[in-house]
Amino acid sequence: MPETDLDQRCINALRVLAMDAVQKANSGHPGMPMGMADVAYTLWTRHLKHNPHNPEWPNRDRFVLSAGHGSMLLYSLLYLTGYPLKMKDLQEFRQWGSRTPGHPEYDIELGIETTTGPLGQGFGNGVGMAIAAKHMAARFNRQSYPLFDHWVYAIVSDGDLMEGVSQEAASLAGHLALDNLIYFYDSNRISIEGSTDLTFTEDVGARFSAYGWDVQEIDGHDCDAVDAAIGAAKAATGKPHLIICHTHIAYGSPNMQGDAGAHGAPLGEEEVRATKEALGWPSMEPFWVPDDVIANYRLAAPRGERAEAIWRDMRTNYEHAHPEEAQELARVLAGALPENWQTAIPSFRPDNGPLATRAASGKVLTSLAPVIPELIGGSADLAPSTNTILSGYGDFQANRREGRNFRFGVREHGMGAILNGMALYGGIRPYGATFLVFSDYMRPAVRLAALMGVPPIYVWTHDSVFLGEDGPTHQPIEHLMSLRGVPNLTVIRPADANETAAAWKVALERRDGPTALVLTRQKLPILPETAKAAMEGVARGAYILSDSPLDRVDIILIATGSEVAVTLAAQKLLQDHRVGARVVSMPSWSLFDQQPVFYKLSVLPDDVIRRLAIEAGSPIGWERYVGSYGDVVGIQRFGASAPYQRIQEAFGFTAERIAERAQQLMAE
Amino acid sequence: MPETDLDQRCINALRVLAMDAVQKANSGHPGMPMGMADVAYTLWTRHLKHNPHNPEWPNRDRFVLSAGHGSMLLYSLLYLTGYPLKMKDLQEFRQWGSRTPGHPEYDIELGIETTTGPLGQGFGNGVGMAIAAKHMAARFNRQSYPLFDHWVYAIVSDGDLMEGVSQEAASLAGHLALDNLIYFYDSNRISIEGSTDLTFTEDVGARFSAYGWDVQEIDGHDCDAVDAAIGAAKAATGKPHLIICHTHIAYGSPNMQGDAGAHGAPLGEEEVRATKEALGWPSMEPFWVPDDVIANYRLAAPRGERAEAIWRDMRTNYEHAHPEEAQELARVLAGALPENWQTAIPSFRPDNGPLATRAASGKVLTSLAPVIPELIGGSADLAPSTNTILSGYGDFQANRREGRNFRFGVREHGMGAILNGMALYGGIRPYGATFLVFSDYMRPAVRLAALMGVPPIYVWTHDSVFLGEDGPTHQPIEHLMSLRGVPNLTVIRPADANETAAAWKVALERRDGPTALVLTRQKLPILPETAKAAMEGVARGAYILSDSPLDRVDIILIATGSEVAVTLAAQKLLQDHRVGARVVSMPSWSLFDQQPVFYKLSVLPDDVIRRLAIEAGSPIGWERYVGSYGDVVGIQRFGASAPYQRIQEAFGFTAERIAERAQQLMAE
Repeated sequence: MPETDLDQRCINALRVLAMDAVQKANSGHPGMPMGMADVAYTLWTRHLKHNPHNPEWPNRDRFVLSAGHGSMLLYSLLYLTGYPLKMKDLQEFRQWGSRTPGHPEYDIELGIETTTGPLGQGFGNGVGMAIAAKHMAARFNRQSYPLFDHWVYAIVSDGDLMEGVSQEAASLAGHLALDNLIYFYDSNRISIEGSTDLTFTEDVGARFSAYGWDVQEIDGHDCDAVDAAIGAAKAATGKPHLIICHTHIAYGSPNMQGDAGAHGAPLGEEEVRATKEALGWPSMEPFWVPDDVIANYRLAAPRGERAEAIWRDMRTNYEHAHPEEAQELARVLAGALPENWQTAIPSFRPDNGPLATRAASGKVLTSLAPVIPELIGGSADLAPSTNTILSGYGDFQANRREGRNFRFGVREHGMGAILNGMALYGGIRPYGATFLVFSDYMRPAVRLAALMGVPPIYVWTHDSVFLGEDGPTHQPIEHLMSLRGVPNLTVIRPADANETAAAWKVALERRDGPTALVLTRQKLPILPETAKAAMEGVARGAYILSDSPLDRVDIILIATGSEVAVTLAAQKLLQDHRVGARVVSMPSWSLFDQQPVFYKLSVLPDDVIRRLAIEAGSPIGWERYVGSYGDVVGIQRFGASAPYQRIQEAFGFTAERIAERAQQLMAE
Repeated sequence: MPETDLDQRCINALRVLAMDAVQKANSGHPGMPMGMADVAYTLWTRHLKHNPHNPEWPNRDRFVLSAGHGSMLLYSLLYLTGYPLKMKDLQEFRQWGSRTPGHPEYDIELGIETTTGPLGQGFGNGVGMAIAAKHMAARFNRQSYPLFDHWVYAIVSDGDLMEGVSQEAASLAGHLALDNLIYFYDSNRISIEGSTDLTFTEDVGARFSAYGWDVQEIDGHDCDAVDAAIGAAKAATGKPHLIICHTHIAYGSPNMQGDAGAHGAPLGEEEVRATKEALGWPSMEPFWVPDDVIANYRLAAPRGERAEAIWRDMRTNYEHAHPEEAQELARVLAGALPENWQTAIPSFRPDNGPLATRAASGKVLTSLAPVIPELIGGSADLAPSTNTILSGYGDFQANRREGRNFRFGVREHGMGAILNGMALYGGIRPYGATFLVFSDYMRPAVRLAALMGVPPIYVWTHDSVFLGEDGPTHQPIEHLMSLRGVPNLTVIRPADANETAAAWKVALERRDGPTALVLTRQKLPILPETAKAAMEGVARGAYILSDSPLDRVDIILIATGSEVAVTLAAQKLLQDHRVGARVVSMPSWSLFDQQPVFYKLSVLPDDVIRRLAIEAGSPIGWERYVGSYGDVVGIQRFGASAPYQRIQEAFGFTAERIAERAQQLMAE
């Protein structure tokens, strides 16, 4: 298919819109869209299977702009091919309340598949989507019914490939032989500081070959070469595909092409004009695009509608041929949990215990696995320690796409980005596990899940200094507090097995953001109160676990997780000293903060000003609940390597010490 | 040098001590030390240049156990070669207060070069040490005086190489041609979940070749092969070296060799016995080591003392030949700043402004660069945005080791781990820069700097939603609060150029932990008060910037960073309403918390209970300073893409809105 004059104008339209929008906003990144316009045009008009009139079509190809700073490329393509993004939106690029923020933000109604910008994340998201596509195909496709049968495309930059998160995801994608991935590497050899010769001189192609990828190398300004490379990638099975596209940043700009200055700043009015002239653009009017260019791009909609119509016919026939599967598919795509799934949640009695909450979580998973087939997940090489194997459901591997257990390897960050892609894909409920201290390794991905409002579930075990002998490198201190600050991340630290079961219920019912389950390594008693009270109590974030044994509340003891049991023991000691202590279990700040005032006051009444919080972590923030007359039993130093009972003593987390601190408060 | 029976017993002693210590602690990782005993013995007895009687000898080889879970290997080597680590210490492995915690913790007196355990970190530390060695050599070595002339060795595991942080560091090490690095990859093909076939099947050797490393592959149980590989690595210049050692985890154990179960749990009394038998170990007594084995290892001390003596002679001659350089070397090795360096710190006047604090920081760096030659650093591809180029001092590159500017690439995590290695090496003061939101990418390394008590300086700019158009992916919300929770990390958010200068002073004078400078993208006025008050005020963490203009203090307004100027404007508005507001600038919580009570009370007197904190970030924790009757102007959601003035209005960070909130508080 030789390139026509219309093709060339369609490509240049992408360059012009990027230049104009960045110029108008006086802020943004014109260079990348200008450099990747040929690749993007070829992909979007000759290959991408999508329906701009139904961005949610489940069998669409996915397109991820991992180099999210080039957002204008994506916005232009969405506008031009007829998604509900208008010229007015492009003109409001980077303005308050616009639909075109500086970096793409997940909005499936507009066709934006994921939020990108922090580099390397989109790379991992695409891997997650490819995994999900393979798994959904294995679960639902039947002979003659390839319901899930599409590609996952991404544009990735030098910066994406320098980031460790992409390297982790690339290694796993190669291992898993995700041949439905086709990534375009925008090799323009320019990053913010200048030429990549400054710092990035490795042989990227050889590296990806070493990961087990199929690698091609082309001129990214040659549409036929792009077309041929995509064709070759589609034909080569068994490996993910990297197409290295040699490009020039700010292609077409007489003075800025190939210059790092074009990466993240407007070209300037004059250079915009000069570029339009050099490109032979017929008008200097900002945002002007010829009608035939728009018409050509808009062919995407009828093409997409036809493709989707054929698929819908197939799905209708599938409903007849495989009614049960079809019903199940409709359910999981709607994100609904199976009917009566809650009845499978186990309940625990004190004589079942003691049980670490990680072990309780494992039991909950074991009970739920048969009931919720879309529940899949794994661990960053800590499955035995995090109790996250779904026993009997096999591993997801290259030769076993129906497997529900994921072996992420020692790749926490990659796991986080991949979980986001899996959750974005739909039809599955992914979880991922590691030690709480290693949540630090995956924070950027966790933050993006919260920002996007997608619901992966994190199982973070070994949640305090009481993991013991592994020592301070493995002992979280600031983590609970710091995770509570992430907007839209629900953090739950259950006190025993029943609170753990309740926490899983909250996590699974949540659809609009991620949930972190923070679990112990060490065994905990199963509390007599929780079989009845935990299910509602955890959902409310905090509740009265055991009220004052006296006829008054002298002091409120607020504890979380493993500190609840020892606080109950302290309550008894205080009773001996005629101090009436109420014990509040507070597994989740954010859930409690969402409760109506009357409920909050019923748990923490204003007139009880003596309050003591007990949590084996940074005390920062507890003042919110204990007030000016309260105190916190927390930890303001790094931990220590020793058996945990010794650490409990040394750090003051015994019933005696807690009771003492409470009495000191009473005396003040 | 053929392996003798004594060699074999020396090697087996490492296996026996690891088994016995883990067994006694009933916790730990015996498999790796047993698998890597041959490599470790060969390295430590035939190659490693070190003096157990002076672990701080500057020209020693560095040895990093990146696979820190194999800590018993390191402890055994240190005990056997005669460092001040005793048999008693080995017997107290993983116990409270012992010198042998679960994972190695930086302790140069014992010969422990860095804290490891969180995987991939040691890999990056070694790269930082190799960089530092090259730089120190370029700065101080002279013809006939190779004062810095040694190797950096590390043992790295499958897990280390799966982590993104190691991949970032490896790519940079290849680019920088760090041929003084020799890494042993313990390729035992076992991780916690089982065989690496589950998830890690890439061609590691090919990947490292792609990064530009020299790669060899050997039988890790063949001492002569190990010896020869080290020799070959030393002879091959221009590339870092990876020696892939094929090993068996838990080598020698009849039933556990090659088993994932031997990774992280004691072998069991019976298997320990069986292994000792299989190894032909003469005694079943725990911790028993033959005298001739100890004597053989202890040859390290006289050998090391001789080597160091020769080096000391060279240094003495150097003192005569190059007295100025020798004096300068003594100073930087002692970690002392140059005399009168503070006089180079610039001061700013209101008519110099407005100035972003990132720009002020750049000016401070420019002023200090000629005065403090050991100040070196760079950015993760954001040098122009973070203002961190030391102009005129060149880049550190393969052909320019004296360069003081580092091009870390888009590798924040690698940068963090490398900075730690540079700081550990001594003689230099490294800094690293990125946007505050991307501190998330480097958190695990930041935490380790704090845990080790080494002083890299972080320059984190674009510190709030007021970075504007880049939008929520780039706008920190929870970061300030979450970083304040890291023990021993000093976080400083200066309010203007003078506070920025004072913050640099605090950071440079700090020797026992890292400091984060949190700086604005947007311009800020230079406040009239700070030229005089900032130097002491910042060092104290908080100070009265502008006291109530009335004869009483009705309310205290506490602000940080960019919110201070707008709070001063609010103070004026309040005065018009006859409300006397004191404005406290609080650039650092931790510095303020360390002040004596009388000082704290002078800034925040108990009797003023109306207090309002103003900070463009998560409000969590501010209750500590505003108390039960206070309030916080903070942000509890993600940000937005728009010009920053629009965001200031929308998020309530204008003088009018702050004054309103203060008046509401007054009315309550």
